[in-house]
Amino acid sequence: MAQTQQVKDLAAARAKTTFPVIDLTRYIHGSDEKIARRRHLASLISNDPVFSNDARVGLSRVQDVKQGLAMSLRLYQLKEEHNLTQEEMLTCMDFVDELLPVGLHETAFIPIIYAQGSDEQAKYWGPLAEKHQIIGCYAQTELGHGSNLSQLETTATLDRDTDQWIIHSTTFTASKWWIGGLGAICTHALIQARLIIDDKDYGAHGFIVPIRSLKDHRPFPGVKVGDIGPKSYGGFSKIDNGFVRFENYPIPRENMLMRFAKVTREGQYIKPPHSKLAYGSMVLLRSHMVRGAGMTLARAATIATRYTTVRRQFHVPTSRKDAANPGLETQVINYPMVQSRLFPIIAQSYAMLAAGTKMRSMYESMLSELMKGDISSLAEVHAISSGLKSTCSTIAATGVEDCRKIMGGHGYSYFSGISHLWSSYVPSNTYEGDNFLLTQQSARYLLKQIKVATTDPEKVTPFSKYVIKTIDQEAFQAERCSVETVNDWIRPEVQLAAFEHRAGRLVGDLAIAAMQEGMVWSDLNLECWRLCHAHSQYVLARSAIEGVASVRDQGVTKETVRVLKRLSDLFALHTIQASLGDYLEDFYVSPNQCQSLRQQIKNLQDALADDVVGLVDAFDFPDHYLSSALGAADGDAYQHLWDAAQKEAINQVEVVDGYKEYIVPILNQHGAAKL
Amino acid sequence: MAQTQQVKDLAAARAKTTFPVIDLTRYIHGSDEKIARRRHLASLISNDPVFSNDARVGLSRVQDVKQGLAMSLRLYQLKEEHNLTQEEMLTCMDFVDELLPVGLHETAFIPIIYAQGSDEQAKYWGPLAEKHQIIGCYAQTELGHGSNLSQLETTATLDRDTDQWIIHSTTFTASKWWIGGLGAICTHALIQARLIIDDKDYGAHGFIVPIRSLKDHRPFPGVKVGDIGPKSYGGFSKIDNGFVRFENYPIPRENMLMRFAKVTREGQYIKPPHSKLAYGSMVLLRSHMVRGAGMTLARAATIATRYTTVRRQFHVPTSRKDAANPGLETQVINYPMVQSRLFPIIAQSYAMLAAGTKMRSMYESMLSELMKGDISSLAEVHAISSGLKSTCSTIAATGVEDCRKIMGGHGYSYFSGISHLWSSYVPSNTYEGDNFLLTQQSARYLLKQIKVATTDPEKVTPFSKYVIKTIDQEAFQAERCSVETVNDWIRPEVQLAAFEHRAGRLVGDLAIAAMQEGMVWSDLNLECWRLCHAHSQYVLARSAIEGVASVRDQGVTKETVRVLKRLSDLFALHTIQASLGDYLEDFYVSPNQCQSLRQQIKNLQDALADDVVGLVDAFDFPDHYLSSALGAADGDAYQHLWDAAQKEAINQVEVVDGYKEYIVPILNQHGAAKL
Repeated sequence: MAQTQQVKDLAAARAKTTFPVIDLTRYIHGSDEKIARRRHLASLISNDPVFSNDARVGLSRVQDVKQGLAMSLRLYQLKEEHNLTQEEMLTCMDFVDELLPVGLHETAFIPIIYAQGSDEQAKYWGPLAEKHQIIGCYAQTELGHGSNLSQLETTATLDRDTDQWIIHSTTFTASKWWIGGLGAICTHALIQARLIIDDKDYGAHGFIVPIRSLKDHRPFPGVKVGDIGPKSYGGFSKIDNGFVRFENYPIPRENMLMRFAKVTREGQYIKPPHSKLAYGSMVLLRSHMVRGAGMTLARAATIATRYTTVRRQFHVPTSRKDAANPGLETQVINYPMVQSRLFPIIAQSYAMLAAGTKMRSMYESMLSELMKGDISSLAEVHAISSGLKSTCSTIAATGVEDCRKIMGGHGYSYFSGISHLWSSYVPSNTYEGDNFLLTQQSARYLLKQIKVATTDPEKVTPFSKYVIKTIDQEAFQAERCSVETVNDWIRPEVQLAAFEHRAGRLVGDLAIAAMQEGMVWSDLNLECWRLCHAHSQYVLARSAIEGVASVRDQGVTKETVRVLKRLSDLFALHTIQASLGDYLEDFYVSPNQCQSLRQQIKNLQDALADDVVGLVDAFDFPDHYLSSALGAADGDAYQHLWDAAQKEAINQVEVVDGYKEYIVPILNQHGAAKL
Repeated sequence: MAQTQQVKDLAAARAKTTFPVIDLTRYIHGSDEKIARRRHLASLISNDPVFSNDARVGLSRVQDVKQGLAMSLRLYQLKEEHNLTQEEMLTCMDFVDELLPVGLHETAFIPIIYAQGSDEQAKYWGPLAEKHQIIGCYAQTELGHGSNLSQLETTATLDRDTDQWIIHSTTFTASKWWIGGLGAICTHALIQARLIIDDKDYGAHGFIVPIRSLKDHRPFPGVKVGDIGPKSYGGFSKIDNGFVRFENYPIPRENMLMRFAKVTREGQYIKPPHSKLAYGSMVLLRSHMVRGAGMTLARAATIATRYTTVRRQFHVPTSRKDAANPGLETQVINYPMVQSRLFPIIAQSYAMLAAGTKMRSMYESMLSELMKGDISSLAEVHAISSGLKSTCSTIAATGVEDCRKIMGGHGYSYFSGISHLWSSYVPSNTYEGDNFLLTQQSARYLLKQIKVATTDPEKVTPFSKYVIKTIDQEAFQAERCSVETVNDWIRPEVQLAAFEHRAGRLVGDLAIAAMQEGMVWSDLNLECWRLCHAHSQYVLARSAIEGVASVRDQGVTKETVRVLKRLSDLFALHTIQASLGDYLEDFYVSPNQCQSLRQQIKNLQDALADDVVGLVDAFDFPDHYLSSALGAADGDAYQHLWDAAQKEAINQVEVVDGYKEYIVPILNQHGAAKL
């Protein structure tokens, strides 16, 4: 069969790439060995019928969860069959691209047992969980409490006589809710409950609580457990998020996790030695989420870039000539309206990946310091990770849906691949710290740095140095952007100065507002939100710039450095443009500079146009993982869309189910037609 | 049973309302008689088990479409049983809140037959369709062409010998795609195809094409028809969007719709007398969409307002005292971070409803002018309707999802009610004119008005008068916002002047850019987009202000006028704030004015806080239609969420389907646990 025009178009666009794509694949995924290993693990999933993309769509809720169970079992079988390490199995789970009923067993239950259980507990429960002879979930959120852990209403009350905890849902709103793996599969739950001894409340602690019998999977007496129902937008469809209520349900005293706090046989509560260490794992989780935001947006960008390259619509001339095919309509990706939305999304993807790498290395050096008892970097790393989590997951969720819109009508087909991606991603804006609440913490941290700057400027932490400049308000207010020509905008120091100035001004304003008499902190949470995102944007821009330097040091081609630099510039300038009002308001940027900024952004978009297909190819997503008719690597979008539709259950019969029951009575309600 | 705290909280908030809610319900829905009729029609749907909210969730794709067919039949039965008019039946269909397989039969196929069919055709096909003895769909979009109608690839070629049209899908991408009602139910399709006689191409025309046999519902030979599969985010789940391909498929010549263009037995093509009239129905459709955007956002605002009133989280003091319940956590709606996101959404809902009313009356006066042959207002009304469609559907889609985020974790439950609402609404950003493409038309119109302003200023159309001021560039550039005090910002003339200035500047800039040598129009589409939205925002603000005046004239209480005025102010100022950069860039607004603007927005939010529950109550949405556990009128959010989960299919058995097949092998993969 002859190649379709779409296949030709994508191949032609790919051929224009100016840099070796493998350079950037290495930048993102590491050594050639790592890349090969990753591809191999992906193939284990894509070659297995249980994980077929056709097998997961159009199911009922009951079928969905059953399919999630089938995928869970198959994943464990693959681990055995291919002798995978735990880490490799988790990589495979990523490629499954579904939150599975056993997902939180692996990523929360097991790690928490080792982190918060005593040595004996780890020795007893760890192997049981690792061999999934028991399956656990992590139950914190309640019907009435999510963000505010201190007000959880589930209690664990010590019964000294029987040496047991009595787990109890004290109110209706104490019902545990949203717990992944609880609805159908788990045998045990790690329950967060307020620990009570002799009417004294010691706050939330973790307890291992048996939920369902290992004999027949029935819930134990005193446990009311079930599934909370479907989630929004078809997301999380394969996982059994559940609820549970306890009615004076006894468990052994030893089931309290006792690495830190302890309760003795005598009922004595022993306080944990220190509390800050727990932050470490939160930082790690959030640094994963920064990279995750980058990878998520990268997938959507891949799909949208490829599809808009092969989609042609209207005979409208654009600045980009399509000389080879004068008779054809214009490729959608050549319209400035598309470029100005899509190219910054590619740049954001790369910037977030750079920040993920940065966060990871900050986490690792912090960890080795912590081991030596040095907690000096903890506060900054924690504040940055909170802020980045909020900013990056917001950018990614918005950007993925923007990619769908960029694709026009076909973007709304399930087979675009965006639906599954976005619907499963969007709750990340709320979990692991609500994106709005998180900004309060980062802002408080920066306020503290202002105090440090006034008393002990050398102690200001590395990413907050800019607050020092705000101390001399007169000099600070006189700061102006140094741009004179269009090309000044691509100087990294100019970009960073702008980000620093904006964040500096916002932290200064916040400090002044917070000192006003009668001011209630919560009245300032909008200002905190603005400040936190300004700071995160600065961290992102700095990470992107450092990313360019790092590839330069790796001896890649100069074309690779050039394209990554352009992306870094586009990220910075697009971000500055989005908050130009802030820069104009205190005269940091002038109206003329606004114009040259817009011009430079256009220049960058023009310069990147030949490379965007290569840039998304570099992410190295296999077709099965993209699961997109429109974004497949071969570009044959319409053929894939057609093929996907033909496999639909509805199309397997000639006359639809419901014809006799419903269509015939509709047609005959007023007598049959006489044609 | 004692009232829950949530029920008490919502009742207490409702009791604070300062104005008679019925005043604004009348403002939105009309006379008491209309309100009562509307409520009655809603009850026909909510009382019928076929339309139960439980019956539509968690289904497989095959079950979904079958349920859509069941709802279609039941709707027609209700029409007979209750002797409903066509309009009343369509109102009922709105309350069903699903795009049904017969939806486009009613809203597209039937109206187009009457609008574009000759009198004989209307007489023949109209009654058949009205009695649904045939069921039709409207087939325009193809796999390869959506926005660009002139390039459709389906052809209708006259065969003079047999006096037939030969309908043919000339290429693979000519396959009709996305067509609602085509996948499973329709017997006929109104096909848009390029009319060809003797190799001459006359462009797209409409043809009535039999698809499935009325005898057994099988597709006719030469017709390959099916369902295109699921849509994104679980949206449009009950409708059978379909595809069709034709293989030299003959239909009678008389099946061409011949009210305007005609083809005779001799094969002579007779041109339509004028082409502008077709714009009328587009304007009507888009004016419906403006009101629809308002109603859609209003539903989400209702849910989010009620839920954040009953949700309490953290013991954080806010400026709003909660003196009655000092021991309770703070109601989420009292946090400024929530108010600053939610209250503008309520204001946007009211502004879009006002614009919908405005559009409707503009359409009606235009129609009566058209009847007299006067087409003078057509161009402006068309441009405004295009721009408002783009702006309002963008605002609504974004705002609905924002409401979900405002609700935190539980917002992601399907039972929040947002999922169904948003997933079905969001394609409106693409259909009936892609929101980005549409802005080109409005911008072109405004550019033309600049020309008119230079030659014949009295002829500038009513909503474009502001372009006149841009002619004297020196004076225009000297324009400054007149605000001196915080309260100046709530003067309508100050607000309108700001909107006019911004739109004026953007149209002036666009005119200059368009005149530059070598400029390609498509390079300016970002600028068109900015201009179009600026113009639409002006129309919205003006409509909201006129809405306040209209209730004032209706003799409502002064409290009603006051609250509607505050909403109008909040809409205007929030909108101005969102594009402050534009105002600062040309010095129209000063940094001091930025500060007073922010202060006034805070003042308005404070002033509205006691009325937001009443404001959303006034929309008058029945619980069944909201279909939200979190947004029910009684406020019992947690109880409803619990109840909804208990009805879940998964929870109807004690041990999940899949236990033996998957869970037992998982637990036993490494031998059973010995506990």
